[in-house]
Amino acid sequence: MSTRTELPTTPVGIAACCSPLTGGALDPDSAQQLARLFKALGDPTRVRLISLIAAAQDAEACICDLTDPVGLSQPTVSHHMKLLAEAGLVTREQRGKWAYYRLAENTFNTLRQALNLDR
Amino acid sequence: MSTRTELPTTPVGIAACCSPLTGGALDPDSAQQLARLFKALGDPTRVRLISLIAAAQDAEACICDLTDPVGLSQPTVSHHMKLLAEAGLVTREQRGKWAYYRLAENTFNTLRQALNLDR
Repeated sequence: MSTRTELPTTPVGIAACCSPLTGGALDPDSAQQLARLFKALGDPTRVRLISLIAAAQDAEACICDLTDPVGLSQPTVSHHMKLLAEAGLVTREQRGKWAYYRLAENTFNTLRQALNLDR
Repeated sequence: MSTRTELPTTPVGIAACCSPLTGGALDPDSAQQLARLFKALGDPTRVRLISLIAAAQDAEACICDLTDPVGLSQPTVSHHMKLLAEAGLVTREQRGKWAYYRLAENTFNTLRQALNLDR
């Protein structure tokens, strides 16, 4: 039995705008939401965890497979994953003993659009 | 007379990799360099300043035109711009009394590639 937690991903204000970051002056709320995403990525361990999930088979990674590559304890890795999940950058699914993570594509699309990639 | 300061933009380790963030497990140095860029963007004022520069005529903005839109003092805005310049996200050109800023395209390309946009 599994429980999938779909965390909030794409903030409406950002999604509504085609290319918010470089497409024009951004309203304060959208700037706040984007900054939150960037801040969550502003840590080398979290950047590595994201890259590990993206590189994993089926683009899904068990927490049990993330600790060794970053050389940190499971509680520490879990803390980083919690921050990434709270920011809406990953989704988490509990299967038995382990948590499995996927990248939240909607949120990454928001970041891509924010960096003006749909121009 | 003007002085253009080209700050370091694309870290070599990142540039050498096609899509570092979601293309595979990232080495620690590249993760550190990417995290530094994301961290610099992890502040709503800096996100707004970036959007203002991108939206400015000729994609260049005078510091004198950035203070009003974000509603902050010039020293505060200058501090944020200094952090963005140190991260390599903007370039700065002093012309007479005022500093003018442009987005550092190389660095934004690095971010775009990191978010797997060249796939």
